[in-house]
Amino acid sequence: MTLIEIAAHVGTPLAPGTPELAIPITGASSLDDAGPSDIVFFEHPKYLRSLRATKAGVALVPLGFAENITPVLIRVARPSVAFTAILEKLSPPPRAVAPPGIHPSAVVAADADIDPTASIHACAVIESGARIAARSVVGAHSFVGCESQIGQDCLIHPNVVLRERTLLGSRVIIHSGTVIGSDGFGYQFSAGKHLKVPQTGHVQIDDDVEIGACTTIDRARFGRTWIQQGTKIDNLVQIAHNVVIGPHCLIVAQTGISGSARLGRYVTLAGQVGVVGHVEIGDEVVVTAKSGVSKDAPAKQTLLGTYGIPIKEGRELVAHYHRLPKTVAKLSALEAEISELRKLLQPARDAL
Amino acid sequence: MTLIEIAAHVGTPLAPGTPELAIPITGASSLDDAGPSDIVFFEHPKYLRSLRATKAGVALVPLGFAENITPVLIRVARPSVAFTAILEKLSPPPRAVAPPGIHPSAVVAADADIDPTASIHACAVIESGARIAARSVVGAHSFVGCESQIGQDCLIHPNVVLRERTLLGSRVIIHSGTVIGSDGFGYQFSAGKHLKVPQTGHVQIDDDVEIGACTTIDRARFGRTWIQQGTKIDNLVQIAHNVVIGPHCLIVAQTGISGSARLGRYVTLAGQVGVVGHVEIGDEVVVTAKSGVSKDAPAKQTLLGTYGIPIKEGRELVAHYHRLPKTVAKLSALEAEISELRKLLQPARDAL
Amino acid sequence: MTLIEIAAHVGTPLAPGTPELAIPITGASSLDDAGPSDIVFFEHPKYLRSLRATKAGVALVPLGFAENITPVLIRVARPSVAFTAILEKLSPPPRAVAPPGIHPSAVVAADADIDPTASIHACAVIESGARIAARSVVGAHSFVGCESQIGQDCLIHPNVVLRERTLLGSRVIIHSGTVIGSDGFGYQFSAGKHLKVPQTGHVQIDDDVEIGACTTIDRARFGRTWIQQGTKIDNLVQIAHNVVIGPHCLIVAQTGISGSARLGRYVTLAGQVGVVGHVEIGDEVVVTAKSGVSKDAPAKQTLLGTYGIPIKEGRELVAHYHRLPKTVAKLSALEAEISELRKLLQPARDAL
Repeated sequence: MTLIEIAAHVGTPLAPGTPELAIPITGASSLDDAGPSDIVFFEHPKYLRSLRATKAGVALVPLGFAENITPVLIRVARPSVAFTAILEKLSPPPRAVAPPGIHPSAVVAADADIDPTASIHACAVIESGARIAARSVVGAHSFVGCESQIGQDCLIHPNVVLRERTLLGSRVIIHSGTVIGSDGFGYQFSAGKHLKVPQTGHVQIDDDVEIGACTTIDRARFGRTWIQQGTKIDNLVQIAHNVVIGPHCLIVAQTGISGSARLGRYVTLAGQVGVVGHVEIGDEVVVTAKSGVSKDAPAKQTLLGTYGIPIKEGRELVAHYHRLPKTVAKLSALEAEISELRKLLQPARDAL
Repeated sequence: MTLIEIAAHVGTPLAPGTPELAIPITGASSLDDAGPSDIVFFEHPKYLRSLRATKAGVALVPLGFAENITPVLIRVARPSVAFTAILEKLSPPPRAVAPPGIHPSAVVAADADIDPTASIHACAVIESGARIAARSVVGAHSFVGCESQIGQDCLIHPNVVLRERTLLGSRVIIHSGTVIGSDGFGYQFSAGKHLKVPQTGHVQIDDDVEIGACTTIDRARFGRTWIQQGTKIDNLVQIAHNVVIGPHCLIVAQTGISGSARLGRYVTLAGQVGVVGHVEIGDEVVVTAKSGVSKDAPAKQTLLGTYGIPIKEGRELVAHYHRLPKTVAKLSALEAEISELRKLLQPARDAL
Repeated sequence: MTLIEIAAHVGTPLAPGTPELAIPITGASSLDDAGPSDIVFFEHPKYLRSLRATKAGVALVPLGFAENITPVLIRVARPSVAFTAILEKLSPPPRAVAPPGIHPSAVVAADADIDPTASIHACAVIESGARIAARSVVGAHSFVGCESQIGQDCLIHPNVVLRERTLLGSRVIIHSGTVIGSDGFGYQFSAGKHLKVPQTGHVQIDDDVEIGACTTIDRARFGRTWIQQGTKIDNLVQIAHNVVIGPHCLIVAQTGISGSARLGRYVTLAGQVGVVGHVEIGDEVVVTAKSGVSKDAPAKQTLLGTYGIPIKEGRELVAHYHRLPKTVAKLSALEAEISELRKLLQPARDAL
């Protein structure tokens, strides 16, 4: 892309005639790694030093940015968004997806129903009764268990396990190493042993869900574990049996959600959050990183800390915690002062 | 099953003659999802509202439950246990397990010893010297390394890795994505580099252990990492080299146990717990979710918090923490009061 | 090995003539598991009781150790280091690595460039344009995506996924279940939906890096996620897109590092640590287990707690926290005392 094309693409046409317009831009890069044929973007003030030092040919910067630096500047309202638009234009040719059809090394049950436009990659295993709809891809070494169903335009990356009777909607993306439909962790204690409770349900994943790498979603004890439309789940997340996650949630890496918990719409759980079993989390709740949720959480609030309290109170507690040495010192000072007052009062006491 | 059969099965025969007895029950479900041909159960008061709204045909409820609601009620001492008994009767036909024998796409070393009743699924790889006993199943894409041994009636789900010399007892279940016998994380620092310490031991897993999905159990530096009889381990758990876990423990999801830690019998580690290296945790200890254990823990206690203190003290600390704003306010009030007293005392002071 | 050979090997020749020198030592073991033909080591005082009870034939002990116990003692400066040296001599014959060449069940693209000394194991899948250099091993069921490159003497264990365009240096070790190059977790919120931001970068892993089991390293949004020379990463670690980890770091199990964070040299993140996005962590920083890092951390300090503060202050806060009941009791006592003083002062007050 030439610089002129880029500027037009992000809606900020450049005044013609400047010599830099001939620069060919062939890559997108981070500020630190960029060379003269790369485009970069700058949005967070934290990276100003990197911007000043960058060797990039072009930089997308906020509208008000006035500094004079090396790259040619293109000013836009949201540099990050504009950068993504350029990325799509410049990105390396997509990974050569195997053509429609079944790789000869794949093992597909005779009664599996595979759409002719679907692509089943090397060493994939598709069991009896499975159905795979149009244009979906099952990556190398992936496993689709008995009677599982995959909707249209899904992308199952290499090395994914879908245990039996898993249901996927359309445009679902699942990354490598992830396991859907493993047994829930359910036992009954009897005569000194933990007896396995049958986990006879399944997992249902609705349209436009994306699930990261090495994430585990357990099948329901009965009924379904259910991830609703448009929710995005990161890597190494644990979702226990019978959990229901509403539409358009974000579940960040290493979060764990215990059995039968229910999340509403547009809930965000940041990284390493833990949710105990059977709680309900309302719409648009945000839980900050490393926090816990141990009771029902009403909608539209941000929760902080191990006990998941509203963020305003939570921050106040954290501030008090960090001031504990001062608080205790003040307490000691008061103690000394009272001791002094008591001494002063001794005559009054004696008089009583 | 008819309602009469269900009631008999849970030991609560119904009085004959009521018209509902003819209802055919074909599925088990959650309160929210149920329809007229489903059975549900109700135990935790939290779900009373869902019970009142359920469209289920039959509900298992506690003995004392007296409310008049839609489903036919069957009263039992432990609804959850009775429900499990019914689940086993109603559950969908089990996944079609491959018949005994070795799938043609599996790769099995000539000198591996596979019992003729064992079932080795598609694309499994069994290396030299491995032994697999009667009726055990090795799922698709699973790997059994050199000289590993799998006892009788084990179920290794798809995509499991058992590295070389792993030993499994009988009736062990391992879920997909799990890795047993990866190298322990051991290095010696020398001349500015971390040099790898050989991890030459193995992992031993005793009878009736179940291990969840995407869990990692490292082989010992020397000797064995050892999971004893009847212990159940959830998903995404990390167990480091030379850890010993006693019989009948429960290790919940995303917990991590550092090297050479030892757990006694009937220990429970709730979700996201961390245990530091070389500690001993006594029999029947319970560690609450997100807590840490950083020193030896005597038997029969429940531990709470990052520093794993007894739960009574731990809860007291948490309560104090949440009252910090009030405590600090009280301190400020006292400070003001003392200042006032001091003023009152000024005459006395002057007199001295 | 005979005892004489062992003593010589660790640099502490034994006085000749004692009868024990004939003991054949065939295994290395832990103190508790050892038998008469095993060698053990003792370093941490915590294990003194186990040492006294061990049935080992030989024990490596610290120089000053003077107690009279069952095993023959060899005194050395660092028993753990000496033990590792012996381990290497005694360890079981290494796992039979497949000979150079491509297993017939592997699926290798016609235009992949595989060195003839490399070993590609059963059911591995190597895609188009991949390059694998001399003596590297790709384990069973492992996947090497399009145009990925693996340097010399790498060991990729079974069931690893290297997505397209991943770059590995020399002598890199990757354990089973690990996924390198999965998409970063990046979305733009627009019209009520999370739209996927293309993740068009790659992952670069430099020489002598080792990565544990079931760890996930996301490809960059653009540019590279980069793990530098000699860094060691444990199991179940999450490394997000565009993270840069400097040379010779140690990242312990279940730690998560958010997008674009940068670590310097010789950084240690202990288990279950969380690092927020876009922070910089200086050289030689140590973050203790379960802690968080939420802002830039200058070099050469140890951080503790959810808010990652310097360990001295952090420990002071923890101590204050654990003394809260005493502090509050003292506050109540002062309150009572002030109340008493006030009563004593009542005459003075009345006089005013």
